[in-house]
Amino acid sequence: MAVSKNQIKFISSLHLKKNREKEGLFIVEGEKIAVEILSQKRYNIKIIFALQDWIVENNANLNPQKYEIFSCNESDLERISALKTPNRVLFVLETVLPVLQSPKGKKNLILDSIQDPGNLGTIIRIADWFGIENIYCSKETVELYNSKVLQATMGSFLRVNLSYLNLSEFLASYSEIPCYAALLNGENVFSTKFPDEAFLLIGNEGKGIADNLLQLPHIPISIPRFGHAESLNAAVATGILCALLKK
Amino acid sequence: MAVSKNQIKFISSLHLKKNREKEGLFIVEGEKIAVEILSQKRYNIKIIFALQDWIVENNANLNPQKYEIFSCNESDLERISALKTPNRVLFVLETVLPVLQSPKGKKNLILDSIQDPGNLGTIIRIADWFGIENIYCSKETVELYNSKVLQATMGSFLRVNLSYLNLSEFLASYSEIPCYAALLNGENVFSTKFPDEAFLLIGNEGKGIADNLLQLPHIPISIPRFGHAESLNAAVATGILCALLKK
Repeated sequence: MAVSKNQIKFISSLHLKKNREKEGLFIVEGEKIAVEILSQKRYNIKIIFALQDWIVENNANLNPQKYEIFSCNESDLERISALKTPNRVLFVLETVLPVLQSPKGKKNLILDSIQDPGNLGTIIRIADWFGIENIYCSKETVELYNSKVLQATMGSFLRVNLSYLNLSEFLASYSEIPCYAALLNGENVFSTKFPDEAFLLIGNEGKGIADNLLQLPHIPISIPRFGHAESLNAAVATGILCALLKK
Repeated sequence: MAVSKNQIKFISSLHLKKNREKEGLFIVEGEKIAVEILSQKRYNIKIIFALQDWIVENNANLNPQKYEIFSCNESDLERISALKTPNRVLFVLETVLPVLQSPKGKKNLILDSIQDPGNLGTIIRIADWFGIENIYCSKETVELYNSKVLQATMGSFLRVNLSYLNLSEFLASYSEIPCYAALLNGENVFSTKFPDEAFLLIGNEGKGIADNLLQLPHIPISIPRFGHAESLNAAVATGILCALLKK
Protein backbone atom coordinates (compact mmCIF):
# COMPACT_ATOMS: atom_id res chain seq x y z
CA MET A 1 0.00 0.00 0.00
CA ALA A 2 1.27 3.51 -0.75
CA VAL A 3 1.30 6.14 1.96
CA SER A 4 -0.99 9.20 1.93
CA LYS A 5 -0.27 12.76 3.01
CA ASN A 6 -2.73 12.39 5.85
CA GLN A 7 -0.91 9.29 7.07
CA ILE A 8 2.40 11.16 7.07
CA LYS A 9 0.81 14.00 9.01
CA PHE A 10 -0.70 11.61 11.55
CA ILE A 11 2.53 9.69 12.15
CA SER A 12 4.59 12.87 12.40
CA SER A 13 2.20 14.05 15.12
CA LEU A 14 3.48 11.15 17.27
CA HIS A 15 6.78 12.97 17.75
CA LEU A 16 4.92 14.96 20.43
CA LYS A 17 4.29 13.39 23.83
CA LYS A 18 0.70 14.64 24.08
CA ASN A 19 -0.21 12.93 20.81
CA ARG A 20 1.52 9.70 21.82
CA GLU A 21 -0.52 9.69 25.01
CA LYS A 22 -3.77 10.54 23.22
CA GLU A 23 -3.32 7.86 20.56
CA GLY A 24 -1.55 5.24 22.69
CA LEU A 25 1.03 4.89 19.93
CA PHE A 26 4.72 5.55 19.52
CA ILE A 27 7.44 5.37 16.86
CA VAL A 28 10.56 3.23 16.67
CA GLU A 29 13.02 3.46 13.80
CA GLY A 30 15.81 1.31 12.53
CA GLU A 31 16.74 -1.88 10.73
CA LYS A 32 18.63 -3.41 13.63
CA ILE A 33 15.76 -2.97 16.10
CA ALA A 34 13.32 -4.22 13.43
CA VAL A 35 14.58 -7.79 13.84
CA GLU A 36 13.88 -7.64 17.58
CA ILE A 37 10.49 -5.96 17.18
CA LEU A 38 9.27 -8.58 14.73
CA SER A 39 10.16 -11.40 17.14
CA GLN A 40 8.87 -9.93 20.46
CA LYS A 41 5.41 -10.02 22.02
CA ARG A 42 5.40 -7.12 24.50
CA TYR A 43 4.36 -4.42 22.02
CA ASN A 44 1.71 -4.82 19.34
CA ILE A 45 2.74 -3.55 15.95
CA LYS A 46 0.18 -1.16 14.46
CA ILE A 47 1.86 0.03 11.26
CA ILE A 48 5.14 -0.50 9.41
CA PHE A 49 6.49 2.13 7.01
CA ALA A 50 9.37 0.89 4.94
CA LEU A 51 11.16 1.11 1.63
CA GLN A 52 9.84 -1.43 -0.85
CA ASP A 53 13.14 -3.34 -0.91
CA TRP A 54 13.11 -3.69 2.90
CA ILE A 55 9.59 -5.16 2.66
CA VAL A 56 10.72 -7.63 0.01
CA GLU A 57 13.81 -8.65 2.01
CA ASN A 58 11.80 -9.19 5.20
CA ASN A 59 8.66 -10.55 3.67
CA ALA A 60 8.93 -13.96 5.36
CA ASN A 61 8.82 -12.34 8.81
CA LEU A 62 5.94 -9.93 8.17
CA ASN A 63 2.30 -10.52 9.03
CA PRO A 64 -0.01 -8.24 7.01
CA GLN A 65 -3.05 -9.70 8.79
CA LYS A 66 -1.90 -8.25 12.10
CA TYR A 67 -0.79 -4.77 11.06
CA GLU A 68 -0.70 -2.40 8.09
CA ILE A 69 2.41 -2.25 5.95
CA PHE A 70 3.07 0.82 3.83
CA SER A 71 5.64 1.02 1.10
CA CYS A 72 7.36 4.43 1.24
CA ASN A 73 9.91 6.24 -0.83
CA GLU A 74 12.90 7.87 0.84
CA SER A 75 11.38 11.33 0.95
CA ASP A 76 8.26 9.99 2.74
CA LEU A 77 10.49 8.35 5.35
CA GLU A 78 12.46 11.55 5.70
CA ARG A 79 9.23 13.41 6.45
CA ILE A 80 8.13 10.90 9.10
CA SER A 81 11.51 10.32 10.72
CA ALA A 82 12.88 12.19 13.74
CA LEU A 83 16.40 11.47 12.50
CA LYS A 84 18.55 13.48 10.11
CA THR A 85 19.44 10.30 8.25
CA PRO A 86 16.24 8.25 8.24
CA ASN A 87 16.30 4.48 8.39
CA ARG A 88 14.80 2.12 5.82
CA VAL A 89 12.02 1.13 8.20
CA LEU A 90 9.86 2.77 10.86
CA PHE A 91 7.37 1.10 13.21
CA VAL A 92 4.28 2.48 14.91
CA LEU A 93 3.77 0.43 18.07
CA GLU A 94 1.01 0.46 20.66
CA THR A 95 2.05 1.71 24.09
CA VAL A 96 1.59 -0.79 26.91
CA LEU A 97 -0.45 -0.07 30.01
CA PRO A 98 2.13 -0.51 32.74
CA VAL A 99 1.57 -3.51 35.01
CA LEU A 100 3.30 -2.86 38.31
CA GLN A 101 5.90 -5.62 38.78
CA SER A 102 6.77 -6.67 42.31
CA PRO A 103 10.26 -5.69 43.47
CA LYS A 104 10.31 -8.57 46.00
CA GLY A 105 13.32 -10.87 46.01
CA LYS A 106 15.12 -8.83 43.34
CA LYS A 107 17.61 -6.05 42.79
CA ASN A 108 15.68 -3.06 41.42
CA LEU A 109 16.47 0.38 40.10
CA ILE A 110 14.71 3.57 41.26
CA LEU A 111 15.11 6.74 39.16
CA ASP A 112 14.23 10.09 40.68
CA SER A 113 13.61 12.60 37.87
CA ILE A 114 16.20 11.64 35.27
CA GLN A 115 15.67 14.40 32.70
CA ASP A 116 18.05 13.68 29.85
CA PRO A 117 16.56 11.23 27.29
CA GLY A 118 20.00 9.84 26.44
CA ASN A 119 20.64 9.11 30.12
CA LEU A 120 17.33 7.28 30.60
CA GLY A 121 17.84 5.20 27.46
CA THR A 122 21.40 4.36 28.48
CA ILE A 123 20.22 3.36 31.98
CA ILE A 124 17.60 1.01 30.49
CA ARG A 125 20.39 -0.56 28.40
CA ILE A 126 22.54 -0.92 31.57
CA ALA A 127 19.64 -2.58 33.43
CA ASP A 128 19.18 -5.01 30.54
CA TRP A 129 22.92 -5.83 30.50
CA PHE A 130 23.01 -6.56 34.22
CA GLY A 131 19.70 -8.45 34.27
CA ILE A 132 17.85 -5.87 36.37
CA GLU A 133 14.21 -6.45 35.38
CA ASN A 134 12.45 -3.49 37.02
CA ILE A 135 12.98 0.25 36.90
CA TYR A 136 10.63 2.42 38.99
CA CYS A 137 10.64 6.08 37.94
CA SER A 138 9.26 9.23 39.53
CA LYS A 139 6.55 10.88 37.47
CA GLU A 140 9.00 13.69 36.64
CA THR A 141 11.32 11.28 34.82
CA VAL A 142 11.50 11.73 31.04
CA GLU A 143 8.96 9.63 29.10
CA LEU A 144 10.01 6.16 27.87
CA TYR A 145 8.44 6.68 24.42
CA ASN A 146 10.51 9.79 23.62
CA SER A 147 12.44 8.89 20.44
CA LYS A 148 15.82 9.81 21.96
CA VAL A 149 15.17 7.54 24.95
CA LEU A 150 14.19 4.62 22.71
CA GLN A 151 17.19 5.18 20.44
CA ALA A 152 19.63 5.16 23.38
CA THR A 153 18.22 1.89 24.77
CA MET A 154 19.51 0.06 21.66
CA GLY A 155 16.50 -2.27 21.87
CA SER A 156 16.62 -2.87 25.63
CA PHE A 157 13.23 -1.14 26.13
CA LEU A 158 11.75 -4.38 24.78
CA ARG A 159 13.03 -6.32 27.81
CA VAL A 160 13.06 -4.03 30.89
CA ASN A 161 9.90 -3.09 32.89
CA LEU A 162 9.47 0.64 33.49
CA SER A 163 6.81 2.14 35.78
CA TYR A 164 6.13 5.78 36.55
CA LEU A 165 4.76 6.27 40.05
CA ASN A 166 4.81 8.20 43.28
CA LEU A 167 8.21 7.07 44.54
CA SER A 168 7.84 8.05 48.19
CA GLU A 169 4.56 6.09 48.51
CA PHE A 170 6.07 3.16 46.64
CA LEU A 171 9.27 3.02 48.70
CA ALA A 172 7.31 3.46 51.95
CA SER A 173 5.12 0.50 51.01
CA TYR A 174 8.24 -1.68 50.57
CA SER A 175 10.13 -0.43 53.60
CA GLU A 176 11.42 -3.95 54.32
CA ILE A 177 13.58 -3.80 51.17
CA PRO A 178 16.84 -1.92 51.87
CA CYS A 179 17.26 1.19 49.73
CA TYR A 180 20.80 2.15 48.66
CA ALA A 181 20.94 5.82 47.65
CA ALA A 182 23.68 7.15 45.34
CA LEU A 183 25.02 10.24 47.11
CA LEU A 184 28.29 12.18 47.20
CA ASN A 185 29.10 11.47 50.86
CA GLY A 186 28.01 7.88 51.42
CA GLU A 187 30.01 4.76 52.24
CA ASN A 188 32.49 3.61 49.61
CA VAL A 189 30.40 1.34 47.39
CA PHE A 190 33.35 -1.04 47.01
CA SER A 191 32.84 -1.96 50.70
CA THR A 192 29.07 -2.44 50.34
CA LYS A 193 27.69 -5.98 50.54
CA PHE A 194 24.39 -5.84 48.69
CA PRO A 195 21.68 -8.33 49.72
CA ASP A 196 19.69 -10.23 47.07
CA GLU A 197 16.70 -7.93 47.58
CA ALA A 198 17.49 -4.23 47.21
CA PHE A 199 16.60 -0.88 45.70
CA LEU A 200 19.30 1.24 44.08
CA LEU A 201 18.14 4.89 44.06
CA ILE A 202 19.61 7.32 41.51
CA GLY A 203 18.85 11.06 41.59
CA ASN A 204 18.35 13.81 39.04
CA GLU A 205 21.38 14.96 36.98
CA GLY A 206 21.60 18.39 38.61
CA LYS A 207 19.61 18.28 41.84
CA GLY A 208 20.33 14.75 43.03
CA ILE A 209 17.75 12.82 45.07
CA ALA A 210 14.64 14.74 46.24
CA ASP A 211 14.38 15.61 49.96
CA ASN A 212 11.13 13.69 50.47
CA LEU A 213 12.89 10.48 49.37
CA LEU A 214 15.94 11.15 51.54
CA GLN A 215 13.60 11.38 54.53
CA LEU A 216 12.81 7.69 54.07
CA PRO A 217 15.27 5.14 55.52
CA HIS A 218 18.19 4.57 53.16
CA ILE A 219 21.87 3.58 53.04
CA PRO A 220 24.01 6.30 51.42
CA ILE A 221 26.62 4.89 49.01
CA SER A 222 29.26 6.65 46.90
CA ILE A 223 31.67 5.94 44.09
CA PRO A 224 35.13 6.90 45.39
CA ARG A 225 36.70 9.92 43.69
CA PHE A 226 40.45 10.17 43.06
CA GLY A 227 40.52 13.29 40.89
CA HIS A 228 38.73 16.61 40.53
CA ALA A 229 35.50 16.26 38.51
CA GLU A 230 32.54 17.55 40.49
CA SER A 231 30.34 14.61 39.58
CA LEU A 232 29.89 11.71 37.20
CA ASN A 233 27.28 11.54 34.44
CA ALA A 234 24.09 9.94 35.87
CA ALA A 235 24.14 7.00 33.44
CA VAL A 236 27.85 6.33 34.07
CA ALA A 237 27.30 6.39 37.85
CA THR A 238 24.33 4.03 37.43
CA GLY A 239 26.50 1.70 35.34
CA ILE A 240 29.24 1.53 37.97
CA LEU A 241 26.74 0.98 40.80
CA CYS A 242 24.80 -1.70 38.89
CA ALA A 243 28.06 -3.53 38.13
CA LEU A 244 28.82 -3.65 41.87
CA LEU A 245 25.22 -4.44 42.80
CA LYS A 246 25.20 -7.50 40.54
CA LYS A 247 28.83 -8.69 40.69
CA MET B 1 33.49 47.27 23.55
CA ALA B 2 30.49 46.45 21.38
CA VAL B 3 30.63 43.55 18.97
CA SER B 4 30.69 43.95 15.18
CA LYS B 5 29.02 41.84 12.50
CA ASN B 6 32.42 40.72 11.28
CA GLN B 7 33.34 39.55 14.77
CA ILE B 8 30.15 37.51 14.97
CA LYS B 9 30.90 35.99 11.58
CA PHE B 10 34.46 35.15 12.58
CA ILE B 11 33.49 33.52 15.87
CA SER B 12 30.66 31.54 14.30
CA SER B 13 33.18 30.16 11.81
CA LEU B 14 34.88 28.40 14.76
CA HIS B 15 31.98 25.97 14.98
CA LEU B 16 33.71 24.15 12.10
CA LYS B 17 36.75 21.97 12.83
CA LYS B 18 38.73 23.21 9.82
CA ASN B 19 38.44 26.82 11.02
CA ARG B 20 39.36 25.89 14.59
CA GLU B 21 42.49 24.20 13.25
CA LYS B 22 43.36 27.08 10.93
CA GLU B 23 42.93 29.74 13.63
CA GLY B 24 44.13 27.70 16.63
CA LEU B 25 41.04 28.84 18.52
CA PHE B 26 37.94 27.22 19.98
CA ILE B 27 34.74 28.18 21.77
CA VAL B 28 33.53 27.32 25.27
CA GLU B 29 30.18 28.50 26.62
CA GLY B 30 28.61 28.72 30.02
CA GLU B 31 28.59 30.53 33.34
CA LYS B 32 29.60 27.52 35.41
CA ILE B 33 32.67 26.74 33.31
CA ALA B 34 33.52 30.46 33.26
CA VAL B 35 34.63 30.35 36.90
CA GLU B 36 37.03 27.51 36.12
CA ILE B 37 38.33 29.07 32.91
CA LEU B 38 39.16 32.35 34.65
CA SER B 39 41.19 30.55 37.32
CA GLN B 40 43.15 28.06 35.15
CA LYS B 41 46.41 28.45 33.24
CA ARG B 42 46.32 25.69 30.62
CA TYR B 43 44.40 27.63 27.98
CA ASN B 44 45.00 31.28 27.09
CA ILE B 45 41.84 33.33 26.83
CA LYS B 46 41.64 35.26 23.56
CA ILE B 47 38.18 36.86 23.69
CA ILE B 48 35.20 36.96 26.05
CA PHE B 49 31.71 37.68 24.74
CA ALA B 50 29.20 38.31 27.50
CA LEU B 51 26.10 40.18 28.51
CA GLN B 52 26.93 43.51 30.13
CA ASP B 53 25.55 42.41 33.52
CA TRP B 54 27.76 39.30 33.51
CA ILE B 55 30.80 41.54 32.85
CA VAL B 56 29.80 43.82 35.73
CA GLU B 57 29.24 40.88 38.11
CA ASN B 58 32.58 39.27 37.24
CA ASN B 59 34.61 42.43 36.81
CA ALA B 60 36.99 41.68 39.69
CA ASN B 61 38.12 38.44 38.02
CA LEU B 62 38.60 39.81 34.50
CA ASN B 63 41.87 41.01 32.98
CA PRO B 64 41.25 43.29 29.97
CA GLN B 65 45.00 43.62 29.42
CA LYS B 66 45.28 39.94 28.59
CA TYR B 67 42.26 39.46 26.33
CA GLU B 68 39.46 41.34 24.61
CA ILE B 69 36.08 41.61 26.32
CA PHE B 70 33.00 42.33 24.24
CA SER B 71 29.66 43.33 25.67
CA CYS B 72 26.89 41.59 23.72
CA ASN B 73 23.14 41.66 23.72
CA GLU B 74 21.17 38.42 23.82
CA SER B 75 20.59 38.23 20.09
CA ASP B 76 24.34 38.58 19.41
CA LEU B 77 25.02 35.68 21.77
CA GLU B 78 22.30 33.66 20.12
CA ARG B 79 24.00 34.17 16.77
CA ILE B 80 27.41 33.08 18.10
CA SER B 81 26.24 30.20 20.27
CA ALA B 82 26.01 26.56 19.20
CA LEU B 83 23.26 26.05 21.80
CA LYS B 84 19.53 26.55 21.43
CA THR B 85 19.45 28.44 24.73
CA PRO B 86 22.65 30.47 24.73
CA ASN B 87 24.53 31.21 27.94
CA ARG B 88 25.35 34.66 29.29
CA VAL B 89 29.03 34.23 28.45
CA LEU B 90 31.13 32.65 25.72
CA PHE B 91 34.92 32.30 25.60
CA VAL B 92 37.27 32.04 22.67
CA LEU B 93 40.33 30.11 23.88
CA GLU B 94 43.61 29.29 22.17
CA THR B 95 44.11 25.60 21.42
CA VAL B 96 47.16 24.04 23.08
CA LEU B 97 49.87 22.26 21.14
CA PRO B 98 49.76 18.80 22.68
CA VAL B 99 52.82 17.87 24.75
CA LEU B 100 53.09 14.10 24.90
CA GLN B 101 52.91 13.09 28.55
CA SER B 102 54.69 9.94 29.64
CA PRO B 103 52.43 7.03 30.61
CA LYS B 104 55.17 5.55 32.88
CA GLY B 105 54.20 4.62 36.42
CA LYS B 106 50.52 5.50 35.86
CA LYS B 107 47.18 4.09 34.88
CA ASN B 108 46.32 5.47 31.45
CA LEU B 109 43.38 5.40 29.08
CA ILE B 110 43.66 4.52 25.36
CA LEU B 111 40.73 5.35 23.07
CA ASP B 112 40.51 3.71 19.66
CA SER B 113 38.23 5.79 17.42
CA ILE B 114 35.52 6.93 19.83
CA GLN B 115 33.16 8.71 17.41
CA ASP B 116 30.33 10.13 19.51
CA PRO B 117 31.18 13.57 20.95
CA GLY B 118 29.04 12.95 24.04
CA ASN B 119 30.91 9.70 24.71
CA LEU B 120 34.35 11.34 24.43
CA GLY B 121 33.31 14.23 26.69
CA THR B 122 31.82 11.83 29.25
CA ILE B 123 34.99 9.70 29.18
CA ILE B 124 37.14 12.79 29.87
CA ARG B 125 34.86 13.54 32.85
CA ILE B 126 35.27 9.92 34.05
CA ALA B 127 39.08 10.16 33.75
CA ASP B 128 39.01 13.40 35.77
CA TRP B 129 36.81 11.80 38.48
CA PHE B 130 39.12 8.79 38.85
CA GLY B 131 42.34 10.79 38.67
CA ILE B 132 43.48 9.35 35.35
CA GLU B 133 45.74 12.06 33.94
CA ASN B 134 46.41 10.86 30.41
CA ILE B 135 44.14 9.82 27.55
CA TYR B 136 45.82 8.70 24.33
CA CYS B 137 43.48 8.71 21.32
CA SER B 138 43.75 7.31 17.82
CA LYS B 139 43.72 9.98 15.12
CA GLU B 140 40.21 8.83 14.13
CA THR B 141 38.81 9.79 17.54
CA VAL B 142 36.44 12.79 17.54
CA GLU B 143 38.16 16.16 18.08
CA LEU B 144 38.47 17.49 21.66
CA TYR B 145 37.45 21.03 20.65
CA ASN B 146 34.07 19.95 19.20
CA SER B 147 31.49 21.90 21.23
CA LYS B 148 29.51 18.76 22.16
CA VAL B 149 32.68 17.10 23.48
CA LEU B 150 33.58 20.14 25.59
CA GLN B 151 30.00 20.46 26.90
CA ALA B 152 29.91 16.80 27.99
CA THR B 153 33.24 17.10 29.87
CA MET B 154 31.57 19.50 32.33
CA GLY B 155 34.89 21.34 32.68
CA SER B 156 37.10 18.26 32.95
CA PHE B 157 38.85 19.09 29.65
CA LEU B 158 40.76 21.70 31.68
CA ARG B 159 42.43 18.98 33.77
CA VAL B 160 42.95 15.85 31.63
CA ASN B 161 45.75 15.48 29.01
CA LEU B 162 44.55 14.30 25.61
CA SER B 163 46.88 13.32 22.76
CA TYR B 164 46.00 12.15 19.27
CA LEU B 165 48.57 9.77 17.87
CA ASN B 166 49.33 6.56 16.02
CA LEU B 167 48.21 4.11 18.70
CA SER B 168 49.94 1.00 17.40
CA GLU B 169 53.31 2.79 17.26
CA PHE B 170 52.70 4.32 20.68
CA LEU B 171 51.68 1.04 22.36
CA ALA B 172 54.56 -0.82 20.69
CA SER B 173 57.02 1.73 22.09
CA TYR B 174 55.69 1.09 25.62
CA SER B 175 55.41 -2.69 25.34
CA GLU B 176 56.61 -3.08 28.96
CA ILE B 177 53.35 -1.52 30.21
CA PRO B 178 50.56 -4.14 30.33
CA CYS B 179 47.61 -3.27 28.11
CA TYR B 180 44.12 -4.33 29.26
CA ALA B 181 41.71 -4.41 26.33
CA ALA B 182 37.92 -4.12 26.85
CA LEU B 183 36.45 -6.99 24.85
CA LEU B 184 33.30 -9.12 24.96
CA ASN B 185 35.05 -12.43 25.71
CA GLY B 186 37.84 -11.52 28.11
CA GLU B 187 38.44 -12.45 31.74
CA ASN B 188 35.87 -11.16 34.24
CA VAL B 189 37.21 -7.74 35.20
CA PHE B 190 36.14 -8.31 38.81
CA SER B 191 38.91 -10.95 39.04
CA THR B 192 41.56 -8.70 37.45
CA LYS B 193 44.34 -7.35 39.67
CA PHE B 194 45.56 -4.21 37.91
CA PRO B 195 49.19 -3.17 38.46
CA ASP B 196 50.07 0.48 39.20
CA GLU B 197 51.28 0.96 35.63
CA ALA B 198 48.74 0.02 32.97
CA PHE B 199 46.90 0.92 29.80
CA LEU B 200 43.14 0.47 29.58
CA LEU B 201 42.16 0.19 25.90
CA ILE B 202 38.59 1.04 24.80
CA GLY B 203 37.35 0.50 21.27
CA ASN B 204 34.98 2.20 18.86
CA GLU B 205 31.23 2.19 19.67
CA GLY B 206 30.27 -0.09 16.79
CA LYS B 207 33.45 -1.79 15.57
CA GLY B 208 35.31 -2.33 18.84
CA ILE B 209 39.13 -2.34 18.92
CA ALA B 210 40.96 -2.27 15.57
CA ASP B 211 42.71 -5.45 14.42
CA ASN B 212 46.16 -3.85 14.24
CA LEU B 213 45.93 -3.04 17.96
CA LEU B 214 44.66 -6.49 18.88
CA GLN B 215 47.75 -7.91 17.19
CA LEU B 216 49.86 -6.29 19.93
CA PRO B 217 50.19 -8.10 23.28
CA HIS B 218 47.16 -7.42 25.49
CA ILE B 219 45.05 -8.86 28.30
CA PRO B 220 41.37 -9.20 27.28
CA ILE B 221 38.97 -8.11 30.05
CA SER B 222 35.16 -8.05 30.13
CA ILE B 223 32.33 -6.68 32.25
CA PRO B 224 30.17 -9.68 33.19
CA ARG B 225 26.71 -9.72 31.62
CA PHE B 226 23.66 -11.07 33.47
CA GLY B 227 20.93 -10.00 31.04
CA HIS B 228 20.36 -9.62 27.33
CA ALA B 229 21.68 -6.28 26.05
CA GLU B 230 24.15 -6.81 23.23
CA SER B 231 26.62 -4.28 24.58
CA LEU B 232 27.06 -1.37 26.96
CA ASN B 233 27.46 2.25 25.90
CA ALA B 234 31.20 2.99 25.43
CA ALA B 235 31.30 5.70 28.12
CA VAL B 236 29.41 3.52 30.62
CA ALA B 237 31.79 0.60 29.99
CA THR B 238 34.75 2.95 30.42
CA GLY B 239 33.27 4.20 33.70
CA ILE B 240 32.87 0.69 35.10
CA LEU B 241 36.38 -0.34 34.01
CA CYS B 242 38.00 2.85 35.36
CA ALA B 243 36.23 2.34 38.72
CA LEU B 244 37.76 -1.16 38.94
CA LEU B 245 41.14 0.00 37.61
CA LYS B 246 41.43 2.62 40.35
CA LYS B 247 39.60 1.00 43.26
